[in-house]
Amino acid sequence: MKLKNLVGQRFKERPADCIIDSHALMLRGGYMKYVGSGIYSEFPALRRVTAKIEAIIRAEMDAIDGQEVLFPVVMPAELWQESGRYDSIARELVRFQDRSRSKLVLGMTHEEAAVQLVREYGQSYQQYPFMIYQIQRKFRDEARPRAGMIRVREFTMKDAYSFHTSQADLDQYYQRCYDAYHRIFGRVGIPEVVAVAADAGMMGGDLSHEYMLLNDAGEDSIVLCAACGYRANMEAAANIVENDGGEAEPLECVETPDCTTIDAVCRFLQRDICVSCKAVVYQKNADDAYVAAFVRGDYEVNETKLRNLVGEEIHPAEITADAPLTAGYIGPYGLSKQVECYCDLSLKGIAGLVAGANKEGFHYRNLNLERELGSVSYVDLAKVKEGGVCPCCKKPALTIRRGIEVGNIFQLGTKYSSSMHMQYTDKDGTIHNPLMGCYGIGIGRLAASVCEAKHDENGPIWPISIAPWEVHICCIRPDDAAAKKTADALYEALTARGVEVIYDDREGVRGGQMFADADLLGVPIRAVVSPRNQKDNKIEVATRDKSVREAVEISECCDYICRLRDKMHKTLLSHAPVLPV
Amino acid sequence: MKLKNLVGQRFKERPADCIIDSHALMLRGGYMKYVGSGIYSEFPALRRVTAKIEAIIRAEMDAIDGQEVLFPVVMPAELWQESGRYDSIARELVRFQDRSRSKLVLGMTHEEAAVQLVREYGQSYQQYPFMIYQIQRKFRDEARPRAGMIRVREFTMKDAYSFHTSQADLDQYYQRCYDAYHRIFGRVGIPEVVAVAADAGMMGGDLSHEYMLLNDAGEDSIVLCAACGYRANMEAAANIVENDGGEAEPLECVETPDCTTIDAVCRFLQRDICVSCKAVVYQKNADDAYVAAFVRGDYEVNETKLRNLVGEEIHPAEITADAPLTAGYIGPYGLSKQVECYCDLSLKGIAGLVAGANKEGFHYRNLNLERELGSVSYVDLAKVKEGGVCPCCKKPALTIRRGIEVGNIFQLGTKYSSSMHMQYTDKDGTIHNPLMGCYGIGIGRLAASVCEAKHDENGPIWPISIAPWEVHICCIRPDDAAAKKTADALYEALTARGVEVIYDDREGVRGGQMFADADLLGVPIRAVVSPRNQKDNKIEVATRDKSVREAVEISECCDYICRLRDKMHKTLLSHAPVLPV
Repeated sequence: MKLKNLVGQRFKERPADCIIDSHALMLRGGYMKYVGSGIYSEFPALRRVTAKIEAIIRAEMDAIDGQEVLFPVVMPAELWQESGRYDSIARELVRFQDRSRSKLVLGMTHEEAAVQLVREYGQSYQQYPFMIYQIQRKFRDEARPRAGMIRVREFTMKDAYSFHTSQADLDQYYQRCYDAYHRIFGRVGIPEVVAVAADAGMMGGDLSHEYMLLNDAGEDSIVLCAACGYRANMEAAANIVENDGGEAEPLECVETPDCTTIDAVCRFLQRDICVSCKAVVYQKNADDAYVAAFVRGDYEVNETKLRNLVGEEIHPAEITADAPLTAGYIGPYGLSKQVECYCDLSLKGIAGLVAGANKEGFHYRNLNLERELGSVSYVDLAKVKEGGVCPCCKKPALTIRRGIEVGNIFQLGTKYSSSMHMQYTDKDGTIHNPLMGCYGIGIGRLAASVCEAKHDENGPIWPISIAPWEVHICCIRPDDAAAKKTADALYEALTARGVEVIYDDREGVRGGQMFADADLLGVPIRAVVSPRNQKDNKIEVATRDKSVREAVEISECCDYICRLRDKMHKTLLSHAPVLPV
Repeated sequence: MKLKNLVGQRFKERPADCIIDSHALMLRGGYMKYVGSGIYSEFPALRRVTAKIEAIIRAEMDAIDGQEVLFPVVMPAELWQESGRYDSIARELVRFQDRSRSKLVLGMTHEEAAVQLVREYGQSYQQYPFMIYQIQRKFRDEARPRAGMIRVREFTMKDAYSFHTSQADLDQYYQRCYDAYHRIFGRVGIPEVVAVAADAGMMGGDLSHEYMLLNDAGEDSIVLCAACGYRANMEAAANIVENDGGEAEPLECVETPDCTTIDAVCRFLQRDICVSCKAVVYQKNADDAYVAAFVRGDYEVNETKLRNLVGEEIHPAEITADAPLTAGYIGPYGLSKQVECYCDLSLKGIAGLVAGANKEGFHYRNLNLERELGSVSYVDLAKVKEGGVCPCCKKPALTIRRGIEVGNIFQLGTKYSSSMHMQYTDKDGTIHNPLMGCYGIGIGRLAASVCEAKHDENGPIWPISIAPWEVHICCIRPDDAAAKKTADALYEALTARGVEVIYDDREGVRGGQMFADADLLGVPIRAVVSPRNQKDNKIEVATRDKSVREAVEISECCDYICRLRDKMHKTLLSHAPVLPV
C-alpha cells in the first residue's frame, strides 16, 4: 500500500510519559493510541504486526494438535463461583450486573469457560488427551498499568487448555507445548527468550514456567545460574543459605536505645548483620490479622513466597497503637501468640542471633532459636541474592536479571476439574477428574517486547516474520518521471510476487523525512529510488538492521529483494531452539 | 483431522428450547455451547466456520481500501459522553466502574472509538477519504436474546468506519461498500440476501440500508414491491394511503355503550373501518408524558416511525385513573392539550370519521379533521400492509416477508465528527467536520443465517467457502484392512493437495451413525470408503446438497474430488451480484 494512505500519524518528539523505548516508539510510529488507563487502540501498522503474531501462534498451536475455539469475554458469575475464584480473586476481576441484575464478570482468563465447554464432551477416557485454545480479548483491572502495551488492562491473549487422564500424559504434552513456545518466540524474532521456573500464583497449579525476555525494561526479576543454567523467577527461586553455626552463649536482653532498624542495632551491638534476625510484618487482607516474617538481616522477604505460605492475600502491615507488636523491636522469642510467625531458612544454624525483644528499647543477644522456642519449622520466604548459591548445582553462581514475561505455561492438576465437577469414566469404569494444563501468550505484549528487544533510537527493527510490511520503497523526488517510473515498476513487480510492500511516493517530502518515517515503521528491507541512483541505473537496497546496504542494478532489483526476503524468513525459521524443561 | 479427535459432541434429539432450526442444528452438531443468556462459546467446528467468514470479510474490506485496526472492548465513559450516547442509550449499554471508581462501558458499537483514533490523523483534507475496520467482540445487553446466534448479547462483529470531505465522496464510497457487502453474502453462500432501505435508529444517520436474508425465522418485517423491486424494512417503508374523500356531514356525538375497540364501535355505528380513527397511546420513557397516535382503523402504528417523530424513547401507555385520557374513547378532537398528538397520513382526505369523543361512552360520527381542528399536519406513522401501494411505483403490489438482518450500512453525516470535535482543514484553509459512514456485519449471526438458509432436517448444508472442512471421508468398517488402506491413502492424498479433510475412521461405529454425524457437520463433499465399494474398486462420492452422487474409481478419486471442490468454489465466487442502491 502507499504510505500516504496509511492511517496513523508519525511524529518526532518522544512523548513525556514513556518509561520504556518500545512504548515511545510505538506511539511515535503511529502504531497505537491511548484510549484510557491501560487501554489502547491499534492503528493499522500494529494490527498488521499482531495479526502476523496471531498467525504464527495459530500455526504452532495447530501443530501440537490444538483446536481453536472461542470463549466469551463476558461470563455469568456462577461459572466463577463454581471454581471459587469469584470470591478468591481481588479487584482484578471486573464484576457487574446486567439489566436483570444477574451478576457477570469480564474474562481475565478462561479456565472456567474451558471446563464448561468440554465438561460433557470429556466424559469418556477415549476422548483424551485434547487441547483447545482461543485468541480473544481479556480485561484485567490492573492496579498499575505501565509501559504501553507491556502491562495493560485490556489485551488480546492466546490461551490454551489441555486435558489429560494421567500425569505422564500431562507431562508429555506440557513438554510439547514448552517446545512450541520456544518455536513461537524464535519465529517472531526473539529466540533469546528463556523459560524459567515460576510461581503458579492464582492459577493454583503445580508446575509452571514463564518465558522471559531478559531486558532491563522488564518488571520481573529472574534468577540465573552461570554455572549450571538454572533459571527461575525470583518468586519461585529457592534461596539456599548455609550458616556456619558457632558456639551457643547465654541469652542476654540488652538495652538498645533508638535502634529501630536491623543495621542500627547491629552497629550498636557490634555484631555482623549475618547473625541478626530481621522482622517484616504484614497483615492479612481478609481480617487484618498480623503476620511476622523473620529473615537473616541481610535478606529481603519475598512476598509471593510468604503469600503462598500464609495461603491468602496479605499486605505490608500498619502497626497501630493497640497492635500486639512493638514496632522496631519485634523478634521471634516472646512474640504475642496473636501474631502468625514464620522463620526463614536463612536463620537456621545460627547459634546466637541479634533479635528484637518485643519490648520497647530492648534487643536480645545470643538468641538461639531452637533453644529458646523449643522447635522451629524453617520455611523458604526470602529473596535470592546476587552471587547466592544455586539450588540446583549448589555453586555460588547466581545472577539476577530483569525480564519481561512473554508467555507462561502451567500444570493445573485437577484444581478446576474437581471444583467444577468435570469427570470422565476410565477404561475400568472408575470415575476421575481429568488433569489440566494451561498455556498463555499476550499478543500485544509480545509485539511490544519484540520492539523493546529489537530497536534503535530511530524506531523498531521488526523481524521480517512480524513486520507490518516486508519491503519499504522510498521514491525520493517522485516528481522526477524516470525515478517515479522505476519505483512504480518495482512496487508492482514485488507486489505481483506476493511481497508485502509499503510504498512512499509522497510529493514534496524530503528524503530525510522519508527515511525517518521508514525507520519508525521498521520494515526490514528498504529500497531507495532517487534521481541520483537512477542515473547509475541503480536502486539502493538496505536492511533496517544495517547488515546489508547495496546499490543493485534496476533490472536485478526485484529478484535481489525477493532472495533477500526469503533468506531473512529462513533465518528466522531456523531460530527454533528446543531447550529441555 | 480425524473426527474422533474433534472436540464437541453431537446428539440426536432436538433441544427443547430452540425456536429455529439453525439453533437446534448448531447445538446438535457440536458447534456451540450455551454459557449464559445470549452468551455462547464456539466449538472448533463453528470456529472454523467463523474464521472463514472473517477471512472473506477481511478480503472484501481490504479490496475497498479498508485498513484493519483494533478498538478496545472496554472504553472510558468520557468517550461516550463526548458523543452524548452515554446518556441517550438505554440499558443495552453496559456501564460499570473500575477499581478506582472510573466509569467504563462495554463497546456495543465503535463510532466513538473510531473518531478518537483518527481525530489527530484526519486534520488535513489530504488524508481523506479513508476507511478503517475491525473484527472484534461486542456486548449489547439485549432485553430478549433469542434464536441461538441470531440475537445474542455478546458477538463478534466486523465494523467499519469511513471518513469523507464531501457528500459526493461519501455517496461514492457508500456504493462501493454496498457492492462489497453483496459480494460478501454471495461468497459465503447466500447471494439471495437483499438490501433494503432502513431506519437509521440510534446511529442517527441519514441514509441507511439493511441486508436481509428473507426467511421465516427472521424477526424483521420486510416490504417488497413485486412490480418495481422496491425494498424496505417495515420500519422505514413509507405507507401510501389514498382516501376517496366523500361528502362532509355535520359532526354528531353519539352514545356508544361498551364500544371500547374500533371494531366494536364500527359495528355498532355500521360504518366501514376505513372511515374510522383508531387511537394508540404511548408514554415517553423520560417523564411518562402521554403521546397519542391516530391511524385509520385498519392500520397499525409503526413504533419506530413514531419514536423518530417524538424524538425520544417511548413505551405503550398505562392509562392511570388520573390520566388526561378516557381509555376506550380517545379521539383527536377535544383531546387534552397535555397529550402530544400525531395524526397519520391514512386519515387524510376522509370527510367523515368515526372517532372517540374523549368522553366515557361516546364517539363522534362525521368527524372532519381539518374542519374540527383547523389545520392538521399529517405524518407517516403507520405500518405498510400486504397489498399496499408501493411508494416508489405507486402500484398496489407490496408484499411483506420476514427477514434476518445480516448486515447494515449507514451514512452518519457529521453526527459524531461534530459532537466529538473532529475537524479538518480544507484546501482553502476553512475548517470542517468530516462526513462518516459505518458498516457492520455480525459474524456469528451470519454463520447462523447461512445455516438457517441452507440446511435439511439432518443438518447444515454449508457452502464450501465457509464449511468447517471441504471433504468428509467416512471409512465404513475401518477394521477391514483394504478399506482402511484406501481411506488412509485418500486422506493423505487430499491433505497433500491442500484440501481440508475431516476423516471418520472410528472403529465400532456403524455406517448410519457415521452418516448422521457427517450430515450434522454439513461438509459439502463426502467420500465413502467401504468393503463393498472396495470390492468394485470404487469410492462413493456425494455432495451434501445431493446434487452429485457417483461411484468413482479409487485411482481417480482424489482428482475427481479436487475438481469437484474447485468447481464448487468457483460457483460461489460467481455469486457476487451487484445491485443498484
